[in-house]
Amino acid sequence: MAHRYTGFMLIALSLLAAGSLLADSQKPAPANGIEVPRNYKTWKLLSVSHRLDKNSIRAILANSVAHRHTGKTSANTWPEGSVIAKLVWKDRTLAKWPDAIVPGAVSHIEFMVKDSNKYANTGGWGFARWVGMELKPYDNDGSECFACHTKVRNSDFVFTQPAKLP
Amino acid sequence: MAHRYTGFMLIALSLLAAGSLLADSQKPAPANGIEVPRNYKTWKLLSVSHRLDKNSIRAILANSVAHRHTGKTSANTWPEGSVIAKLVWKDRTLAKWPDAIVPGAVSHIEFMVKDSNKYANTGGWGFARWVGMELKPYDNDGSECFACHTKVRNSDFVFTQPAKLP
Repeated sequence: MAHRYTGFMLIALSLLAAGSLLADSQKPAPANGIEVPRNYKTWKLLSVSHRLDKNSIRAILANSVAHRHTGKTSANTWPEGSVIAKLVWKDRTLAKWPDAIVPGAVSHIEFMVKDSNKYANTGGWGFARWVGMELKPYDNDGSECFACHTKVRNSDFVFTQPAKLP
Repeated sequence: MAHRYTGFMLIALSLLAAGSLLADSQKPAPANGIEVPRNYKTWKLLSVSHRLDKNSIRAILANSVAHRHTGKTSANTWPEGSVIAKLVWKDRTLAKWPDAIVPGAVSHIEFMVKDSNKYANTGGWGFARWVGMELKPYDNDGSECFACHTKVRNSDFVFTQPAKLP
């Protein structure tokens, strides 16, 4: 009986280990040393945008730290721990309303992570991007992202201004 | 002493009543018998859109009932209690990135409330809209909204298809 119990436990532990390995292999690789933030899909809305030069439409979400900053637009510095998500889809025309552009395939998702010490070389923000539904890390150290974001140095390197709502 | 206490209580109660009246007067009037849903700004993202015919950009959010439906696109019927928010801003060009359209002034916010019995005449959905930051109720019984939404009868009268995310 003890042998059967030990055997059962060994099988159970092996299954757990295999499951854990599988979970690890399914987890996307980090980009610029940053992991895909958990639960980013449930974050709150900051704004939306449509990039006519890229034919892509976007939602900008905020983690809880960043969201508490929303509405304080006079405070142009985002607090430490802020994470801002930009979710980017290729343009698609809505078949039932051809004048509406809506999300098509996922282009990429990207994040700005505020940590002034860790990312001192890129304005205090770590930049990370993953491409497509397969979340392929976009290989860069953030300097490519930062090069464009220097345009908005005066708003703490963030393009997004939180959308007003009543 | 008892008189002073009573006097204090009367003043306190008066202030409370005044505050309550003030809160009521600040509360937007219902539209089509529907109140502005509380906390709608914190709801989760369903999708985004850009209406080229209206020069307006939109975020579509879901209450918790509707959000649990997300991803179940084969189930074309939204559950009772679903509320879908459409938040609509006038197009604005982002000064620091002129090829980006971003939210300008609030145009209106509108909601679809699923209650098959109550709103049997309009596809099982109650439609409500408020205009501008002042949340002026848009005067209609939902039939004007419903007239357009009949185009998407096959997706339970909802234009929005939840945006895919990895």
